[in-house]
Amino acid sequence: MHIFTCRVYYEDTDLAGIVYYANYLKFIERARSEWVRTLGVDQVALKEQGIVFAVRRVEADYISPAKFDDVLTIETKMVSKTAARLILDQLVLRVGGELFRARVTLVALTPDGRPTRLPKGAFD
Amino acid sequence: MHIFTCRVYYEDTDLAGIVYYANYLKFIERARSEWVRTLGVDQVALKEQGIVFAVRRVEADYISPAKFDDVLTIETKMVSKTAARLILDQLVLRVGGELFRARVTLVALTPDGRPTRLPKGAFD
Amino acid sequence: MHIFTCRVYYEDTDLAGIVYYANYLKFIERARSEWVRTLGVDQVALKEQGIVFAVRRVEADYISPAKFDDVLTIETKMVSKTAARLILDQLVLRVGGELFRARVTLVALTPDGRPTRLPKGAFD
Amino acid sequence: MHIFTCRVYYEDTDLAGIVYYANYLKFIERARSEWVRTLGVDQVALKEQGIVFAVRRVEADYISPAKFDDVLTIETKMVSKTAARLILDQLVLRVGGELFRARVTLVALTPDGRPTRLPKGAFD
Repeated sequence: MHIFTCRVYYEDTDLAGIVYYANYLKFIERARSEWVRTLGVDQVALKEQGIVFAVRRVEADYISPAKFDDVLTIETKMVSKTAARLILDQLVLRVGGELFRARVTLVALTPDGRPTRLPKGAFD
Repeated sequence: MHIFTCRVYYEDTDLAGIVYYANYLKFIERARSEWVRTLGVDQVALKEQGIVFAVRRVEADYISPAKFDDVLTIETKMVSKTAARLILDQLVLRVGGELFRARVTLVALTPDGRPTRLPKGAFD
Repeated sequence: MHIFTCRVYYEDTDLAGIVYYANYLKFIERARSEWVRTLGVDQVALKEQGIVFAVRRVEADYISPAKFDDVLTIETKMVSKTAARLILDQLVLRVGGELFRARVTLVALTPDGRPTRLPKGAFD
Repeated sequence: MHIFTCRVYYEDTDLAGIVYYANYLKFIERARSEWVRTLGVDQVALKEQGIVFAVRRVEADYISPAKFDDVLTIETKMVSKTAARLILDQLVLRVGGELFRARVTLVALTPDGRPTRLPKGAFD
């Protein structure tokens, strides 16, 4: 399991005084970027070869709101893997409990947007 | 069914040259705001009474990417409704096909973040 | 002078209950995109030729805050133009007064980030 | 001088392959939040007293673009201070040089949006 932490800033909040719902997807994407880095996957180099990761599906549960100045922990765990598709569980926590949970399906795409194989060996 | 249109601008894209995945949630939230307006629900007045809508769950499928300068249509349709919970289907389309589809569960919350009844009659 | 209107949505606000300060730059960039469109400049085609517009300098005054649900008008006016550089004045208004004003310096860049001439005739 | 670092993620980039121009304002606002924290100013407590910081003016120079995966350093330095107004210089750097520089004027506002004195002693 990969652990990432981030702080909630003004930009993340909305007038309800809590984190805007779309911004949890930013937090978990930052965590995925750090996770693939720890696996030795270089997204910049992949992009130069024309391969980008794309999200195919997200199932997200909003459990309790994150607030300004909160320090969040994001846990990322691989659930399943095929040649073309990864499924991850990602959890956003604050001291005291779970705030947000998502199951994310990722694919690799070529420059014309077609699915391609994931970088070989990267996610073993 | 409610119809809303919006344009894709620079702010919505990422280095993959397509709309960043979290931003579809912004588009469909704009559509929901316009939808509740057409129903006569005044979110500003509700907020002053301490009631805000909150998203509880999103199931989102990314079908085909939206690009810079695209004009998007967002269709919003109520799927089910209880005293405390709405379920909507929201579809993002461009001429030629579906790009994104989400099922969104909404609740109403009091200022301390507890679920409350939806504004009476508003969604009948 | 070019006129563009947009609505303030949840995504634009922050916990202070007003539009987050960086988001005015999004609003005026939308207005610039619509402005260049009316001039017949196709940013997608330019991008394919490797030319993008880039902001070189912004001087921004925050006069009065925009709020959720506000309908904003953005006025865009060219102040000066050389072969390589445009200067625009952009004003964000709501019924009743000015909210935000910016002077924006734009340049055209090649794919390697070097300044190049603006598309010929486009801004005459 | 206060130093803050942050990483550039997908969310920060646009289709030009570089950081979207409004997002530098997010980076420097994160740095200001961390800076006031080091000064012992609690923005959450202030907000509960009805006081928020607001940006009154930004003069921003875009020198060289930040890219995906860059680690950025943000330097924040107070330039001047009166009872009601702070002026800061903020610089965004990457190894090898300056990318962005802004002079930011901050005021403190009451809940009805009127200027008030800055928290006493906080910025001495």
